Amino acid sequence: MMSLAAARWNAAIEPGGEASLEVVMVYELYYWPGIQGRGEFVRLALEEGGAKYIDIALEPDGGIPAMNKFLEGPRVPRPPFAPPFLKAGKQLIGQTANILLFLGGPLKLAPRDEAGKLWVHQLQLTVADLVVEAHDTHHPIAVGLYYKDQKAAAKRRAEDFRDNRIPKFFAYFEKVLTRNRTSGPWLAGPRLTYADLSLAQTIAGIRYAFPKASSKALRKHPRLLKLHDAVFERPRIRRYLESGRRLAFNNDDLFRNYPELDG
Amino acid sequence: MMSLAAARWNAAIEPGGEASLEVVMVYELYYWPGIQGRGEFVRLALEEGGAKYIDIALEPDGGIPAMNKFLEGPRVPRPPFAPPFLKAGKQLIGQTANILLFLGGPLKLAPRDEAGKLWVHQLQLTVADLVVEAHDTHHPIAVGLYYKDQKAAAKRRAEDFRDNRIPKFFAYFEKVLTRNRTSGPWLAGPRLTYADLSLAQTIAGIRYAFPKASSKALRKHPRLLKLHDAVFERPRIRRYLESGRRLAFNNDDLFRNYPELDG
Repeated sequence: MMSLAAARWNAAIEPGGEASLEVVMVYELYYWPGIQGRGEFVRLALEEGGAKYIDIALEPDGGIPAMNKFLEGPRVPRPPFAPPFLKAGKQLIGQTANILLFLGGPLKLAPRDEAGKLWVHQLQLTVADLVVEAHDTHHPIAVGLYYKDQKAAAKRRAEDFRDNRIPKFFAYFEKVLTRNRTSGPWLAGPRLTYADLSLAQTIAGIRYAFPKASSKALRKHPRLLKLHDAVFERPRIRRYLESGRRLAFNNDDLFRNYPELDG
Repeated sequence: MMSLAAARWNAAIEPGGEASLEVVMVYELYYWPGIQGRGEFVRLALEEGGAKYIDIALEPDGGIPAMNKFLEGPRVPRPPFAPPFLKAGKQLIGQTANILLFLGGPLKLAPRDEAGKLWVHQLQLTVADLVVEAHDTHHPIAVGLYYKDQKAAAKRRAEDFRDNRIPKFFAYFEKVLTRNRTSGPWLAGPRLTYADLSLAQTIAGIRYAFPKASSKALRKHPRLLKLHDAVFERPRIRRYLESGRRLAFNNDDLFRNYPELDG
């Protein structure tokens, strides 16, 4: 699989033309087909960073056999626990926030100083906490059970998420945006970082899942809405959205729209 | 608070002796008093790394006013979302895994090469996922509610945790230990890293919370038990455990022993 994908990319290089070409890293992203999920946080970074990448989920077989080779293969020296994971040359990197930590430098989506890098990663990990909580509103008991088999618990967990957790996380990120003294809509310093992309994606997901609760919360936090809009108006992000490659939010995904959970 | 704590440390320096002293970073750890919680992952790294640090939770007032200054103060430029957070000089670092990423270099608890650093961080984030799931067994509905008010849901979630999630995570980490071709009990390469400390602490916590289920699972995963024992036999970790500063596991904490959740 790996060599197939690599070969496909290499085929775009004209014979004999290699010597004049810049060496470009072609990343390979491994994630489930059919959903945005956590893979989407990586995709947005790859797209905004103008990276060359192969999205293995778009392979005819959904990329699942290729993915499973790394998850279950007996000789992978540093096996990931779960997708998404990224292949960069011989390096295999798992955990969404860790992939973004890795990509931040080469894709220019993170500050260059060490303290700035850590601050952006800290924000990313806080976004990740919010994402887990958003997911667990529809799966509070077990990921292996259907939603319909944990609906009563989901209703209670969603109520707490709407009443306490969305307000707490949104107020926090609004505060971070307020404290950033540089002009512009971003969380950290004057330039967009991967944490901005992830927060915008999370806001979009929560708006899909909880249209009523999120609308109420966003009215109180105008900077969050501004950040969301600024991300989705970026030329490269718009191009990605218009490409047809971005999947729509759906109810097999991380963020799910069950009206009964929106109060 | 900050200057008080710093002053206390400085008071240990003899007058006139400053010039001959090595400049040592004195870290300040901010976390809730009375529990190990997520602060303990940082404490174990600081202890094993031989760091000088002030544990603000040990202040007479539990350190809560000092902690709140950073969480709620109106002029903190990079406010943390929640404890634990670490102060290193003027730098404030939040999110447990991010703090360990920061400490890995200076405390020599991470590999020196970039790929190795990312691998250890990836493992740490996977440990963090397990910790969230262990916590949510007793709080599946809302952190703001008492256990007794979510007991039925807790019972169901704990059953899934025992039957599916403990086996999945333990099998994964056992696999990582098997794939590490260097001699020694550690996850990544030949030397102990912060991920080993965190995994050992998580195993200890799960043994406290689920003595029956974890005993069954650990019998199948001998390398995990060996790693756990090797960590808690380290001279500096033993000294910390014997110091009286390490709190006992308890039922206000992350890992809780409710026999009805152990099947």
